[in-house]
Amino acid sequence: MLPERTSEFRLIETFRSAIGSTPHVLTGIGDDTAVVAASDGLILLAADMLLEGVHFDLATATPFQIGRKTLAVNLSDVAAMAGRPKYALVSLALPRQLHEQRDSNFAEQLFEGLHLLADEFETVIVGGDTNSWDGPLVINVAITGEVPAGNAITRSGAQAGDWIFVTGSLGGSIAGRHLDFTPRVSEALILREVCQLNSMIDVSDGLVADLYHILEESHVGAILDGSAIPISEAAAAINDDRSPLEHALGDGEDFELLFTVSPKDGKALVANNPLPIPLSHIGEIAAGDSCRLRAESGKEIALPRLGWSHEVGQC
Amino acid sequence: MLPERTSEFRLIETFRSAIGSTPHVLTGIGDDTAVVAASDGLILLAADMLLEGVHFDLATATPFQIGRKTLAVNLSDVAAMAGRPKYALVSLALPRQLHEQRDSNFAEQLFEGLHLLADEFETVIVGGDTNSWDGPLVINVAITGEVPAGNAITRSGAQAGDWIFVTGSLGGSIAGRHLDFTPRVSEALILREVCQLNSMIDVSDGLVADLYHILEESHVGAILDGSAIPISEAAAAINDDRSPLEHALGDGEDFELLFTVSPKDGKALVANNPLPIPLSHIGEIAAGDSCRLRAESGKEIALPRLGWSHEVGQC
Repeated sequence: MLPERTSEFRLIETFRSAIGSTPHVLTGIGDDTAVVAASDGLILLAADMLLEGVHFDLATATPFQIGRKTLAVNLSDVAAMAGRPKYALVSLALPRQLHEQRDSNFAEQLFEGLHLLADEFETVIVGGDTNSWDGPLVINVAITGEVPAGNAITRSGAQAGDWIFVTGSLGGSIAGRHLDFTPRVSEALILREVCQLNSMIDVSDGLVADLYHILEESHVGAILDGSAIPISEAAAAINDDRSPLEHALGDGEDFELLFTVSPKDGKALVANNPLPIPLSHIGEIAAGDSCRLRAESGKEIALPRLGWSHEVGQC
Repeated sequence: MLPERTSEFRLIETFRSAIGSTPHVLTGIGDDTAVVAASDGLILLAADMLLEGVHFDLATATPFQIGRKTLAVNLSDVAAMAGRPKYALVSLALPRQLHEQRDSNFAEQLFEGLHLLADEFETVIVGGDTNSWDGPLVINVAITGEVPAGNAITRSGAQAGDWIFVTGSLGGSIAGRHLDFTPRVSEALILREVCQLNSMIDVSDGLVADLYHILEESHVGAILDGSAIPISEAAAAINDDRSPLEHALGDGEDFELLFTVSPKDGKALVANNPLPIPLSHIGEIAAGDSCRLRAESGKEIALPRLGWSHEVGQC
C-alpha cells in the first residue's frame, strides 16, 4: 500500500506544480473544489477525453504532445463559440508502469504540455483528479470559457446567402499536425470583433462532416467551391487512393474555424483578412438541405455526409 | 467504420436523451460548448474520474450505480464547500463489448444513474464527451457550483478551540454504501445558514486522513473523543482484525461532512440539530499540529495519519 501511496502522492505533487494561478482563482488545488470569481455574461462549458489507442498512440506521440493536445481540443471548442477560455480541470488515469519507472518523467512531461499551452492562452488549470492504474492512458480536460451575453456563436445561425469561410488549410492532419495544432482562440476573438459571425464550428470531424453540423442545426444547405478549398501541404503530400481535395474535405482534426457571415461581411473579409493566418472563402449557404460541390468545370456534385461520389476525387 | 460509427452515434443519442435543461442553459449538447448564464458570487469547479477495477468493479456494481456514484462524489465535493451544484460535464470511455451487446442497455442505465441524481440535486448535465473503446470503463464528471462571495468553506479556517462535527455515521462503506450514498448538499446549505462554518471537508479518504487535511491547511491540531465517533452499522458488523472504531476512523468513502465551528455555534448545534440526519460532536481543534484520540479511560493516544497504535483498536 505504501509504495503505491507514495507514487500517488508524487503524481499529485507533479500535478500541483503544473497549476497556474491568477487573482481570480481564490482557491486552487488542495481543497474540495476550486473557487473562482464569477463573471458577467455567459459561461461556456466543454470536456474532451483522449484515450490511448483511440486518439493517440504512445509509440508516436510524446507525453508532452498528449497533454498539450487534450487541452488544445478543448481550447478549440471554446474558440468555436468565439469565447475566451478561463479555467481547466484535468483528470488523468496514468498507466502505473509509466509512472513508476525510475527514469520516467512521463507525468511531468504530460503536465508540461498542458501547462505551456494553458499559459499561452491565459487559461488556468485549477484542479482535477489524478490516478494511476493498470489500464491505458486516459486524460480528460473540462474547460470553462467566457463570452459577453449575446456573443456566443453557435452552429444554428447560418442564413441562406451567407458566405462560408475556413481558416488555415485542411487535410492530412494525421501526419502530425493533430498533435501540435494551434487552437484558433485569438482568431475567433478577432473575427467576433470585426464582423457579425452567423454560425461557427471547429473542424474536428472533417470539413464536410462539420459543415453538415451547421447545415442541420441551421436548416439550410450549402454549395462549396472545389477550387477554393485550402489544401494543406500534408494533404497534398499524401499518396493514396484519395485526392488531396478529398483529404481536405474529409480528414478530421484540422481544428480550423469554419464559419459563415453575410455577403457584406464576407466581401470585407476577402478584401482585408484581419487574421495572421490564411482565410478562405469556400462557398455559400443555400436554401434547402443539400450540400453540393462546384467543380472547376462548373459541374455540381452532391456532397453527402459520407460516401462521396467517385467524381469528387476527380475534381 | 460504419458499424462503429452507428454504435458511436447511438451512444451520443443515449447521452443526449439523458441531458437536462433549464432556462439558464442557453445551449446544451449539440454545439461546441454548453453556454450557461453566469451568476454573481463565486464559481466552484471540481472533477472526479472513476476507473473500472480501481473505484468500482463491474461484477459488483451496476451501471446505474456507477453513473450515480461518479456524479455523487462530485456533488459531495461541492457540498464540502457549502456550495450549490449547478452544471455537470460527463466524459465516458465505454468498453465496446458492453455497448455493442444486443441486449445491453449498459450506457442507458449508466446515464439513468447520472440523470436521476442530477435531477434530485437540481444539477444540469450540459455536455461532455462519449467514446467507446477496447479498454476498461472510465467515467469522468466535471462539476460547477455556486456560492455567494465569502461563503465558500475551505479546509484552512479551523481555529484552536473549534468544535469538530461529523454528519451521519462512519465506516464500512465498502460493504455497499459507497455505491448509494447521499451527497450532503442540502445539509451543507442548512449548516451554512444556521452557523458560521470555519472549515469543512467531505470524508472521502477516511475520518482521520481528511481531518489531517483540515489540520494541515489550518495549521492546528485536534483531539477526538473516541466514544463520540458515530460508528455505522456496517462498520459494527465487520468481523476482521480491526475494531469498529478503527473502521470508523480509517475507512474511506463515507462522504459525510466533517466541519468545525466555534464552541458557541457548536453548543447550539448540539442543543438543536438542524439537519434531518445525525450530527455528532466528535472533538475539538487544539493548538499545535498533533491529532490525538481520547479513550473512554481518559487516556490520550497519538493518532497519526497512518499506522495507528495497537491501543486505538482497544478503545
